Amino acid sequence: MVFSSQLIEKAVEAFSKLPGIGKKTALRMVLHLLKEDENAVIHFSEAITRMKKEVCLCPDCNNISDAGLCSICSSPMRNKRLICVVENIRDVISIESTGQFNGLYHVLGGLLSPLDGIGPDQLFVTQLRDRITRLEVEEVIMAISPTIEGDTTLYYIAKMLKGIEVRISGIARGVSFGGELEYTDEFTLSRALAKRLPIENYINVTEAKV
Amino acid sequence: MVFSSQLIEKAVEAFSKLPGIGKKTALRMVLHLLKEDENAVIHFSEAITRMKKEVCLCPDCNNISDAGLCSICSSPMRNKRLICVVENIRDVISIESTGQFNGLYHVLGGLLSPLDGIGPDQLFVTQLRDRITRLEVEEVIMAISPTIEGDTTLYYIAKMLKGIEVRISGIARGVSFGGELEYTDEFTLSRALAKRLPIENYINVTEAKV
Repeated sequence: MVFSSQLIEKAVEAFSKLPGIGKKTALRMVLHLLKEDENAVIHFSEAITRMKKEVCLCPDCNNISDAGLCSICSSPMRNKRLICVVENIRDVISIESTGQFNGLYHVLGGLLSPLDGIGPDQLFVTQLRDRITRLEVEEVIMAISPTIEGDTTLYYIAKMLKGIEVRISGIARGVSFGGELEYTDEFTLSRALAKRLPIENYINVTEAKV
Repeated sequence: MVFSSQLIEKAVEAFSKLPGIGKKTALRMVLHLLKEDENAVIHFSEAITRMKKEVCLCPDCNNISDAGLCSICSSPMRNKRLICVVENIRDVISIESTGQFNGLYHVLGGLLSPLDGIGPDQLFVTQLRDRITRLEVEEVIMAISPTIEGDTTLYYIAKMLKGIEVRISGIARGVSFGGELEYTDEFTLSRALAKRLPIENYINVTEAKV
């Protein structure tokens, strides 16, 4: 692409470094901003620089925070005896969006993956043990994706927590809502059959807020 | 989506106002920038604000420019007797990227569309006539999309230029390179048959720089 304006070229380059954005999409965004009101554009770029400069990680749970402890850890409304362990920030947003969980989170910042050289030292795991004893946590819910790395991490943490008096549970695995049996993989389906539930579990499931 | 950080929420909102970007893609971009080096993020937002504040329109051709006359109009290497009329800035970038055109441009800023209330007054058309007489232009190439609005604009400009001694041409219309006859619409195909060319025109066509 040949631009007659250096400024446009630089802006397009900046946008095309974002994930999933090619040169053509970047140009479309730049030309959109060019048409926008100047204040809107200043607001846009300020939102980004402020976010980058001010957002930090919560020292307790490793979630994103605007300052010091995150809004979840510092909320007096949250059940501090219940911790949900997740892989990353996106998972916190997903679970928060369900509105069904009222405990605290613990963000690992990744999953154990010996092939990629990610061991326990790279993750926020030892802090989990300290936190469980400090807060006298009653239950730890492992909300980790059911992949090889996910299961490795899950077993590692379960082993690490041996000897500490805390209940460890994992999120339910089975066929998704709206998912059709025809298109469900054999592994999920055979496991869902083996781990079948009494029919009472099917009723009022959305009311069971934790 | 529920965010535990206001700053992240604002950044996601800012991104999701861009064309074609939903909340999930916006979050992906924001988390990407969060991981990036602080200088890279400052560079990103500066590129956008500078672009918005400093980019102006060339008073001669209505193309984007970093200051005053655009780099194409002010270049001494360009053939000032040849003007290519296009709809918008994107078309200038497309034609410049071919590297085949060495004349000047004239950006209309839209196409005539009575249904949308766009008449000649909303477009950069009268300036074209003045420019043709001032620069003693020899040829005007109409590089306008072959749509109803495009053809309306084309005929309007051709009529406006009646009486001025200038050659008016339009870009070739026909089957695209790599396009398969099977999937070409009937109108394009029947016109391509009717306006068939002597086979000599097929050879060395990329060398015919204008």
